[in-house]
Amino acid sequence: MAAAGGRPIFRRMRPLLLAFLSLILAAGARAQPAAFRVEPFASGLENPWGAAFLPDGRLLVTERPGRLRLVGRDGRVSPPLAGVPQVEAAGQGGLLDIALAPDFARTREVYLCQAALVPGGALTRLVRARLSRDARALQRVRPILDATPPQASGRNHYGCRIVFGRDGALFLSVGERYETKQRAQRLADLGGKVLRLSRDGTPWRGNPFAGRAGARAEIFTYGHRNPQGLAVNPWTGSLWEAEFGPLGGDEINLLRPGRNYGWPVVTHGRDYDGTAIGEGASRPDMEEPIHVWLPSVSPSGIAFYTGGAFPAWRGSLFVAALNPPGLVRLSTEGDRVTGEERLLQDGPRLRQVVQGPEGALYLLTDEAEGRILRLVPAR
Amino acid sequence: MAAAGGRPIFRRMRPLLLAFLSLILAAGARAQPAAFRVEPFASGLENPWGAAFLPDGRLLVTERPGRLRLVGRDGRVSPPLAGVPQVEAAGQGGLLDIALAPDFARTREVYLCQAALVPGGALTRLVRARLSRDARALQRVRPILDATPPQASGRNHYGCRIVFGRDGALFLSVGERYETKQRAQRLADLGGKVLRLSRDGTPWRGNPFAGRAGARAEIFTYGHRNPQGLAVNPWTGSLWEAEFGPLGGDEINLLRPGRNYGWPVVTHGRDYDGTAIGEGASRPDMEEPIHVWLPSVSPSGIAFYTGGAFPAWRGSLFVAALNPPGLVRLSTEGDRVTGEERLLQDGPRLRQVVQGPEGALYLLTDEAEGRILRLVPAR
Repeated sequence: MAAAGGRPIFRRMRPLLLAFLSLILAAGARAQPAAFRVEPFASGLENPWGAAFLPDGRLLVTERPGRLRLVGRDGRVSPPLAGVPQVEAAGQGGLLDIALAPDFARTREVYLCQAALVPGGALTRLVRARLSRDARALQRVRPILDATPPQASGRNHYGCRIVFGRDGALFLSVGERYETKQRAQRLADLGGKVLRLSRDGTPWRGNPFAGRAGARAEIFTYGHRNPQGLAVNPWTGSLWEAEFGPLGGDEINLLRPGRNYGWPVVTHGRDYDGTAIGEGASRPDMEEPIHVWLPSVSPSGIAFYTGGAFPAWRGSLFVAALNPPGLVRLSTEGDRVTGEERLLQDGPRLRQVVQGPEGALYLLTDEAEGRILRLVPAR
Repeated sequence: MAAAGGRPIFRRMRPLLLAFLSLILAAGARAQPAAFRVEPFASGLENPWGAAFLPDGRLLVTERPGRLRLVGRDGRVSPPLAGVPQVEAAGQGGLLDIALAPDFARTREVYLCQAALVPGGALTRLVRARLSRDARALQRVRPILDATPPQASGRNHYGCRIVFGRDGALFLSVGERYETKQRAQRLADLGGKVLRLSRDGTPWRGNPFAGRAGARAEIFTYGHRNPQGLAVNPWTGSLWEAEFGPLGGDEINLLRPGRNYGWPVVTHGRDYDGTAIGEGASRPDMEEPIHVWLPSVSPSGIAFYTGGAFPAWRGSLFVAALNPPGLVRLSTEGDRVTGEERLLQDGPRLRQVVQGPEGALYLLTDEAEGRILRLVPAR
């Protein structure tokens, strides 16, 4: 009762004092680098690509060659789960991302993204399945969206991240498949797009191109190259995306419905032979990235940090970088990037970063003898 | 020299005598039932569906749940081959037919037909692959045609036989998938059709509907229900087909390009509840079957007999029947059916019949503990 009351002067001042205290704490947190250490968590994974924590704290992890495993809280790696769909494991393709449905605890539904072979070539495919009660198998496995058209040659640029928005919409990123950059600009083509879908793979109601002749109703945004990072900003609800540029020009984009993110018309990068691409770096009718890397970091998975283990990192966006390898921390304010820090620059290529239930960061290494590393506070 | 010459009167008469002798022998062969016995050849196969003899006399056999095995000349069954594509093994679907390319000896190319899950449901899929040198694996497995559109509900009526014509064209039979009979009449839909394709799955040049708006160029014939038998008549070069009618009305059809075989507008059968289907049994603009079963025999695979082991059966078309089970022998003349004999009526359901290199008939039984039976001449 005393704590809830107090002397009148403090009672009246308390909101102001608390706000002031918050500011001081926040400023301190920003100024002071977090002390962390990296510890091995799991090993024996071949090119792990995507990961999702179950409510019980175990981690589902995909291996690009086409396996799905469960990693216990002690880091022990299970045998491959049964029922995993066949994948086109070649080039950059294979079994790629995994995400739990928002109502997983009730439905046990999971979503997988993969490279699939169909007549005409390979494409990015979204699959829905249920995790069996004993978590040893996928059941009722159903492909629910093929990012057509397939491409006959080349096995690159599948994109393939899955996230759910606050309203339950499923976002899927799809690469432009590398061989024909212009696919990213074609609205009748699902390559080089971020899609917004219902849980059954059909277009989300209210999508920007629904009803437009010659345009696919699944499209949320277009003009993407190879988007392998997707995350919903937990403070603003906005969808953030990371994509690989060519030689330089890796981007973080803030995705808004119907917008054109420019590839290959505008880019800050150059082609791999050093020549220019498109018309330059920007155009009024196309969206500017909110962050660009020149030279590249090759950003794959991204995750906003909301945990308590590293108070100084709350609000940061972490980026798993392949080349040069490392973990990039972007400090953010609202939907802006305000700073950048490079961590683990002497480490392995990183494919994905996910926050664990205890606030540690789990990093998937892109290696044939792949591992999961864990960032925990230094003691 | 004496044999080549002989007395003048016989020398002049010889062609006539030989022709007369042939007639007597042929008449004798027709009149006299062939004496045969059935022997077990192989076992341990789960619902075997399709089979193809390799040039070395070994037999490739599909199992509907999704395995492919090699059966030695001694009947020994190999472990499942590696690299077999994933199939939708439900209802009537799974791994279905297999055929060797005409140039298999050089290319080692094989074609598989299967039920596949794609976004939107299941469909009949044609797959091309190579048999590895050691015949233990499929390599370079590529789906080359999906009989779109997929169907969300139901896993029936895939059709799924593959044969090659004399000119190298690949024919694939596709069922109408049961739920929507009218698919068989829609030319924009590959259900309920026989397709004529090139080796890469594209339409065969000169197909009847090439260039017609709203029609698929893959179609060779249409108006089919569930065609599981296809064979080229080795004496005429014509394509013969067997399909399941509903309650009665199983058919043998002689397929000519662009023709409509009537399902579900005309049929000699009735629906499973006994009600009539369509407009009756025939219509001038639709093709009549060349043979009808009322009641049904449920005809699956078919094979013309060309071997030397049963001279009386040369020219017969054999039909593997599921229900009532048995082997049906149709005697033929040119492209006509001239008679019918029922064999093995007390035996198991038969899915396919193929002629072996020595002229025996190999019968695949449709059983969970499936077998291959061999018909050989009685001694």
